[in-house]
Parts: sequence; C-alpha cells; structure tokens
Amino acid sequence: MRHTHAPGTQRDTGRIEAFSDGVFAIAMTLLILEIRVPQPPSPSEPADLTRALLDLWPSYLAYVLSFVTIGIYWARHHDIFKLYTNTDHALNLLNLLFLMCICFLPFPTEVLARFMHDGANQKVAATFYVVSLVLPAATWTTAWLYASRGYRLIDRHLSREFVRRLTIQYLVTVALYAGAALVSLFSFRMGLAICIGLTLLYLLPPRKPVYVHEAQAA
Amino acid sequence: MRHTHAPGTQRDTGRIEAFSDGVFAIAMTLLILEIRVPQPPSPSEPADLTRALLDLWPSYLAYVLSFVTIGIYWARHHDIFKLYTNTDHALNLLNLLFLMCICFLPFPTEVLARFMHDGANQKVAATFYVVSLVLPAATWTTAWLYASRGYRLIDRHLSREFVRRLTIQYLVTVALYAGAALVSLFSFRMGLAICIGLTLLYLLPPRKPVYVHEAQAA
Amino acid sequence: MRHTHAPGTQRDTGRIEAFSDGVFAIAMTLLILEIRVPQPPSPSEPADLTRALLDLWPSYLAYVLSFVTIGIYWARHHDIFKLYTNTDHALNLLNLLFLMCICFLPFPTEVLARFMHDGANQKVAATFYVVSLVLPAATWTTAWLYASRGYRLIDRHLSREFVRRLTIQYLVTVALYAGAALVSLFSFRMGLAICIGLTLLYLLPPRKPVYVHEAQAA
Amino acid sequence: MRHTHAPGTQRDTGRIEAFSDGVFAIAMTLLILEIRVPQPPSPSEPADLTRALLDLWPSYLAYVLSFVTIGIYWARHHDIFKLYTNTDHALNLLNLLFLMCICFLPFPTEVLARFMHDGANQKVAATFYVVSLVLPAATWTTAWLYASRGYRLIDRHLSREFVRRLTIQYLVTVALYAGAALVSLFSFRMGLAICIGLTLLYLLPPRKPVYVHEAQAA
Repeated sequence: MRHTHAPGTQRDTGRIEAFSDGVFAIAMTLLILEIRVPQPPSPSEPADLTRALLDLWPSYLAYVLSFVTIGIYWARHHDIFKLYTNTDHALNLLNLLFLMCICFLPFPTEVLARFMHDGANQKVAATFYVVSLVLPAATWTTAWLYASRGYRLIDRHLSREFVRRLTIQYLVTVALYAGAALVSLFSFRMGLAICIGLTLLYLLPPRKPVYVHEAQAA
Repeated sequence: MRHTHAPGTQRDTGRIEAFSDGVFAIAMTLLILEIRVPQPPSPSEPADLTRALLDLWPSYLAYVLSFVTIGIYWARHHDIFKLYTNTDHALNLLNLLFLMCICFLPFPTEVLARFMHDGANQKVAATFYVVSLVLPAATWTTAWLYASRGYRLIDRHLSREFVRRLTIQYLVTVALYAGAALVSLFSFRMGLAICIGLTLLYLLPPRKPVYVHEAQAA
Repeated sequence: MRHTHAPGTQRDTGRIEAFSDGVFAIAMTLLILEIRVPQPPSPSEPADLTRALLDLWPSYLAYVLSFVTIGIYWARHHDIFKLYTNTDHALNLLNLLFLMCICFLPFPTEVLARFMHDGANQKVAATFYVVSLVLPAATWTTAWLYASRGYRLIDRHLSREFVRRLTIQYLVTVALYAGAALVSLFSFRMGLAICIGLTLLYLLPPRKPVYVHEAQAA
Repeated sequence: MRHTHAPGTQRDTGRIEAFSDGVFAIAMTLLILEIRVPQPPSPSEPADLTRALLDLWPSYLAYVLSFVTIGIYWARHHDIFKLYTNTDHALNLLNLLFLMCICFLPFPTEVLARFMHDGANQKVAATFYVVSLVLPAATWTTAWLYASRGYRLIDRHLSREFVRRLTIQYLVTVALYAGAALVSLFSFRMGLAICIGLTLLYLLPPRKPVYVHEAQAA
C-alpha cells in the first residue's frame, strides 16, 4: 500500500484572484452606502434639498477617492499575481490580511465624509482615513516582500533589476502614506493631497515586467 | 542575456467583464436597501401599515427604474465588449470611471424616492436623479469614442456604417439624458418620463453588429 | 464586400447563469441586514439583551424562510438552464424581471419581521410578504412558458410528458402562492404556513428531466 | 422510443464552490457595515472623535475575528471540496444550511461589538456570538459526516486514517466551540479567548490529504 501526498491542497492562484476580485467589487460598491440621504431638520420646516446635496461634497470626494484607490488595487492585484508562479499558505494569509484592510475602507471613508465640515474633528477624521490607507499598502508590500524574497514564489525569469525596482516602489509608497498620516495631524488638507497625488500617480500605466532568459538563482 | 517585455500585463477583456458583471450585480441588489421599512409615527399610536406601504410607491418606481437601467447596461456591456478585440490602460480606466457612475446610482435613487412626495424638493430630487443618469451614459460613450476612434481597439472587420451608427446612437442618448435633466428643472414629471422612455427603447433588441470581409484601415 | 451578421450578440447562457448566481448570492447575504441590533429603550436604564434577542424570533424566522426560498431558486435556476439550449432577448428580459423580484425580497422580509408582533398590522405585513413571494414564482413561470412553448428554446429531445408536467407544477405553485396571499388576509398564520409548506416541498430533489430519442416537433 | 435520464441535474461541485465563494466574499465585506460612525452626543456640543474612534475597539476586534473566521472557512471549504468526488441533493442542502449560518455572522458580530462595553449585557452578547460560531462548525461537520460516511461522496483513494483524523478534528472543534459557549456564560472573556485560540489554530496549514493506492471499500 503506497501512501502519497496529493497536490490537492496546493491552491492555484486562479481561485484566490477570483475571490479577491469579488471582494474588491463588493467593497467598491458598498462605498455608496456611506452617503446618507439628507434628513429634514424638522418635519415642520421643509428642507432645502439643493443646499443639502451640495453640502454633501465631502461625501462625494471621499467616495471617488476610495473607489479609485480600491479600483487601482484591483488592477494591480491582477498584475502582481501574474508574476507569482505559485502561492503557499503564508501568501494566502497575507492576501487575506490585505483584503481585510481593503474591506475596512468604507468605514474611514464615511468618517472622513461626516467630519470634514466639523472644525473640531476634521484633522482626526482625515488622519484616521490616511492611516487606513497605510494598512492595505503595508500588507500588500509585506506580501510582495515575502513572495519575492529569494524568488520564493515569483517567476525565476523576472530580471533582478525589475524585482528590485518594484520592491523600492512599494516601500516608497508605504513611506509616503505613512508620511501623509503624520502630515495630516498638522494639516489635514496637505495629508489628503498627498494621498490624492499618490492615487493619481498610480493611475499611470504600471511598469512592464522584464524577463530574462536564464532563471535567477535564489 | 536577452531582455523581453512579456505580454503579462496586457489585460484580457474576460477579467474586466467578470469584474464589471460583479459590480452590476451588486449595484442592482443594493438598490433594495433604499426602501426603508415604515416607522410608526409614535410608539403610542399604531401605524397604518397598508397606507404606509402604498405611500412608498415612489420607492418602488425608483427601484424598478434603476434596476432595469443597470440591467440594460449589464446586457449592453457584454455586447460592446464583444466588439473590442483588446483593451488597454486607458480603456480600463474609462471602464472603472463608468462603473463608479453605476455604483453611485443607489444614492440618487433613494433621494428621488424620499422627496418625490415633497412639493418643495421634488424638482431638485428628480433633476439630481436624471443628472446621475447622464453620468454613466457619458462615460460609456467616452469609452466607446476612445476605443472606436480609428478602430483603435475594436474589430477591424466591423463595417464603418455600423460603427458610425453606434456612435450616433450613443451621442444622441447622452444628449437626450442631458435634455431630460434640463427639462426636469421645469417639469420633473416630463424629465423622468424621458428617462423612462429611453429605458423602454433600450429594452428593444440591440442592433446586430455588421462585419465586412476586408479589415478597415484606421 | 460581403456583409455578414455575426452571432456575436447571441448571448450564451453561461454568462446569464453566472450573473444570476451572483444576484442570488448577494440577495441571500443582504437578508441579514434586516435584523437590527436591539436598541436600549433609554440610555439611562440598561436593556435586557436576552429578552431583546429572544423577541427577535420573527426576524430569525423570516431570515431562514427567505434564505431557503432564494437558495431553492438558485438551485432550480441552474437545473432549468440546463434544459434551455439557447437564450434570446425576450428570455433575457424575463430573467432580469425575475431577478428584480428576487432582489426585492429583503424588503418584505424586514416588513414581516418588524410587524409580526404588532397585532394591528401583522395581517398586512404577512400578506405583503406572501404577495412578494408570488412575484418571483409568476415571473419564473412566465419565462418557462415562453421558453418551452413549441420547444422554442428548450432541448427538443425533452419528452413532451416531462415538459407538460413541469408546466403544471409551476402553474400550481403560482396558484398556491396566490392562494396563500388570499388566505393570509384572513389568517396570516395559515398563509405563512402554506408558504413554508411549499418551501419544504421544494427541498425535495427535483424531477429528473426525461429525454427521448427523436427530436420533438414544434 | 427510448427514454433516458440525463445526468443534467447531477450538479457539478464547481458551481457550488463558485456560489459559496461569492457568499463568503459578500459576508466578509458586509461585516464593515456593523461599525457605525460615532454620532455627536448632541448637536450643540462637539463630539470628541478621537475618543469615540478609540471607544470602538470592540467593533474592530469583532470585525477582525469574524473576518478571519469566515476567511478560514473559505480556504477550508475549497480544500474539503477537493476531497469530494461528487455532490448530491442532500449535500447541496447541507452546504446551503452551512452558508446560512455564515451569512448570519454579521448580526452577532454587531451585537458583540455594541454590548461589549455594557456591563449588564456583555455576557449575553458574548454568549450569543459564541453560539453563532457553533452553528457553522456544526453544519460543516454534519456535511462532512454525511459525505464521508462509507465513502459516500469522497474519493475512495483517501486513506481511512486520514478520513478518521479529519472526522475527529471536526467533532473536537464543534465540542470546543460548544464548550466556549458554556464558559462564556460565566466568563465572557474566557469564552471569547477559546474562540480566538481556535481561530489561531486554524490559521496553521491544513493537514495534507493522504491517498492510498487501492480504493477503499464502503
């Protein structure tokens, strides 16, 4: 009687990608629930709906910023999973951790939208939002560092230069988000501006992967 | 050592379609959350639930209109992606922008439903709703203009006539929605009627693509 | 220059099934949002959470009933789409209409849960819920009648007997739901009991399709 | 005229897996809706947002615990469906029952988060949450017992030893969750600690299936 360990539990990246895609799509769509229909101040006096809808501009801004941010993660998630030749238990868990941070975003988005008008709390709200943007960037970068270290799970034909550049890019992104969080403690407008700038930069086409002929040694 | 750029980051349309399908499905399903269970006016006197459920008719109407509108976009999105032979970074971003407008719809749907009874604000609510219908139509058309211009991303065997007709159809649709928005500033019933009419028209089977034997020059 | 009409817009059933599956999954998951966390009667006196959680039993019951009902539709939707050899524009629209009725269910589910305790309104709430169950059954049956009539879109090797039996089964189901709606106007417990009975019956394995060797004439 | 029963209604596991994946993704993403934006105590005095966001720590904890728990079920669901060679009507229903318990989790998660600060109700809230964790574990185990009994639906090349070990593992898990529910009646911190411990244990890589050369007799 021969015992063999089947490759059955070796998870293919296809399923993780499909699952992550679903989470991205739902998180993006749930963002709209943070924009609440304006309530009349009292049943007797009629609300001025025009004014109320215009006053919701922080909600619209927060909606767009969070939607585009998650949308970019969606697109980049696909690109990076093309670099992985495989996945393992640790990468699956890191990906789950990353998705947990993505799914958290509707909450700080709503906090930002509600308190951007409130002089006493706008700084706190913006800082909370920016810190919430550090989290997915940090977990994303951790997953990349784990997978790319010694070509553990990435294609061995990727050029060392390309891998090094991507690593630097991700680390700089985390540093910039963390810096934006610090900055927003003093000037919440400046902190948010850095995040918007980063998002705009990431709208540019991603760096194309460069492959070399010989497999790289670990 | 040979360096090559892999086609790895060239996104296939299949994944965009699946992702967009997910977003359509979630946006449609979230619409029901805009219909709120009627609250009793005060805990002491019992609510007349029959009356309350009937009074929600603007919510039902808004639900059906938005559901069918998004449903049509879902069906047409599939058709149009059959015309694309490829996608690029710009089209991906335009598609993301379009989806952002689709995901926004539950909010104006709720605004419309809440204020259709409110004489002082019904015009504003309807105009806001119709403007929100202009947005997906406009981004959709922008994506088409980008992709079809000089046969950039569409099948080169599509007849010039068919491409021109689709372009005109989309531009007219945007114009009609924009017109409806203007009209609803004066008569909100008329503005909404135009939108309902457009939706009914789009329930008709779509124009079949016409292919020609020779590839069209850009 | 030869003009041809491509089969490009002929929608394959695979995509409709995947889309419908997504809608089923979301509608089922959204049901939980109808169960609201009990609020303390006043900030000063502490709430009795045990009592409050037990008092939510109509919410749990409504959750289970609606969840299982949609779950059965999900399973049967798959079975019936195996009988279709094709789909056309009208069937797509009928399917969209059916999904619109499925997505509506979280609302009457919440109405039922909220007013089942309320002596003055429990009859209305139950009737509203049962009527909402008539809608998907009726649109489902309409789609089947359209597709099966003269073997329009179903496999021509299905036996006449099997098609006839399924037609009768669906028509009887609609009649029973409609009857339950009438009954619940007088006894809401009886009306709900009929719906629960129908759901239990549909938990039985579905009738196996019977195929015959020769294609059936229209 | 030959009558045959087509294998058309024999559901392939692929579709159940895709559907279950969708439900997992939505249930995880909906968890964020349980965290509510802090409301100012009164419109006149400004809220202290920093304090309010920090006071939400039970919500963050409950979010993370429920997210990771459902995430683990997602990963294990995939592994276990690789052991099934087939599915039947009863297993489909058991899977639906299991998903109903997963979809229920956002509610007890919110109850736990709201009442963890409330001395009079924290025990009840925690017990309710832990009982809600017993349900998916119990339905999961029931499905496994049904499918594995006499190798009814699992691969006949799985070693008896492996099947027995998995059965024991699942039964022990249910017993531990049930024990945690009892414990939380006396010490809610201890009850939750057991659940967290179980979740951490399940973060370890799953046992690899062991296959033997000869098919096992029932």
